[in-house]
Parts: sequence; C-alpha cells; structure tokens
Amino acid sequence: MADPLALERLTLEPLTAEAFAPFGSVIQADPAAMRLINGGTTERYHALAEAEAYGEDARVILNIFRGAPRAFPYALTMMERHPLGSQSFSPLTPRDWLVVVAPDEDGRPGRPRVFRACGDQGVNYRANVWHHPLMAVGAATDFLVVDRTGAGNNLEEFFYDTPFLIAEP
Amino acid sequence: MADPLALERLTLEPLTAEAFAPFGSVIQADPAAMRLINGGTTERYHALAEAEAYGEDARVILNIFRGAPRAFPYALTMMERHPLGSQSFSPLTPRDWLVVVAPDEDGRPGRPRVFRACGDQGVNYRANVWHHPLMAVGAATDFLVVDRTGAGNNLEEFFYDTPFLIAEP
Repeated sequence: MADPLALERLTLEPLTAEAFAPFGSVIQADPAAMRLINGGTTERYHALAEAEAYGEDARVILNIFRGAPRAFPYALTMMERHPLGSQSFSPLTPRDWLVVVAPDEDGRPGRPRVFRACGDQGVNYRANVWHHPLMAVGAATDFLVVDRTGAGNNLEEFFYDTPFLIAEP
Repeated sequence: MADPLALERLTLEPLTAEAFAPFGSVIQADPAAMRLINGGTTERYHALAEAEAYGEDARVILNIFRGAPRAFPYALTMMERHPLGSQSFSPLTPRDWLVVVAPDEDGRPGRPRVFRACGDQGVNYRANVWHHPLMAVGAATDFLVVDRTGAGNNLEEFFYDTPFLIAEP
C-alpha cells in the first residue's frame, strides 16, 4: 500500500444528534427525553433509539462487543452495512471512541464521515447505513450491541479503491 | 411502618447465569458465547439475551435509566412486571448494583431473591417476570435499558402486606 500519510485525510466531527441524524440516533442522556419514574428515584431517558429487525425469523438480540484499540494513523479501507436491521453500540466503560459512517451513493458508500463520540455516547445505525467496524481508541473497550438475528444475509461489505486516512483520534 | 430492622431479611446471592435462569439472562462477556469478528479486532459475545415485544404496535426501544442510589437498610415494599415485553439493564459505568426478582405465585410475586451484580453484569428480565425497580448502589448510575413500547398496559405492580429488608448491599 502507498504511504498512509499520503492518503486523503478525514476530519473528525463532534458527535451530535443533528449531525448524525442522516445515519441514525445518538444514545445519550438527553434532557429533552427525560421523565421521572420509579417514585422519582430514576430518570428515564425514553426511546433514544429504536431497534429494526426485518425478514424471516427476525429477532432483536443483545450482545457485547469487545473492541481492540485501533492504531493511528489508520488507513480506512472498507465499510459494511446490515440491510435487515439496525445495530447499536453503547460503551460499557466511559471511554471516547470513533464512529465512522458514509452516505449511500448508488449502492456504494460515499466519502466517510468520522465522529468523535464521548464515553457517554452510543449510536444506533439504521438498517442499511454504511459504517466502519467498531473503532475503539486507547484501550480495549466493551460495548453493548443491540442488533438483529434471523434468516438471510444481513452483511454487505465494500472496499474502497483508495483508502482514506484517520490521522489521529 | 414497623422498625425496618425487625423485618424479614433477604440474603444476597451472587449473580450467575444458572441462578438467574428462571427469571431471564445475565448479560456479560461469557467466553462460551465469544466469536472473533471484524478481521480479528473484535470479540463478539453473541446473543447474550433476546428482546421480547408483544401486542399491538410493539417495538423494541433503547433508553438510558439514571438510577439514584438506594439507602440501606432498604425496606422492599413492592414489585412490578411487564406482561408485554422483556426489559434489560446494563450498567454504563462499571459499578456493582442489585437485581431483585421473585417467582410468580398465582399472579402475585413470591418471596424476593436479591442478586448482587458486578459492574460488568447486566440482566434481561423476561416478559412478565416480577422484579423490583432499578436499585443502584453507592452513586447515581446510568444503565442502558432495552424494552418494549407500543399500545396496551405493560405495567403491573404488587405491594406486599409486610415488607422485606435488604440490610446492606
């Protein structure tokens, strides 16, 4: 591969609900979604995201993903998507991480966008949204992952002709 | 109310998948459920729990619950259950917490069982399992909660004639 530092660099954006809206939901304790329950002992931040599960024998399952930290500079070579269901990631320890998504352009991912998520932010990718596999930063990190299982092929991958560069997290 | 210390004391049990099986699933990184994905960079602990959502307009939603820490000794006066769906709790910071459930006895909760969960353990209550509202310990704690929304009444509460005591966490 060519010198990674010669690749086109991607700029990091802060992760906000507005910026991420084309791709899915940000899962964080948003005061606008808060209601008191359990006799006032619990703040419920309600319906921050919704799971999607389509197709034969579709079910929503809960998993833990333990992501190894990525090495930077990182050459981003591929993206993937899940046509039959959403997929959410919520860090189980409060450590910042990177969320990489791309708009669809005629069935292929366009230029990636990189969001820097704080340790108290998760995301839910809507079904069929192009994203990069889990990108932990600094140390191995566990995430709760809510996604779909069932019959059928729920994975599509795409490899870019020329990688992009994430210089540092 | 009578002197709380005169109430019947509940013994704490460690939270294990086997002990909790009558009530639902323990959500933790169980080596038996591990498969390597993402080119070996991610350990996927697969299908640790499954979301249930029944009835009209049923959907699975993701929420954050911020639980205030309970004061101990704690007089346990009530239980609740959700007939139309499961409900999972996974701590978003690694802090121990308490899981309180009860077997059903002719439509009422029986004697409660108290499990001490480690900070890396979540649980999923199956639909219609009696449980106590969220019981954080020591400090306010955020949990990712996966449960059901939709039409119909999904909450049933029961108040014990005589409370039980959790002396300390």
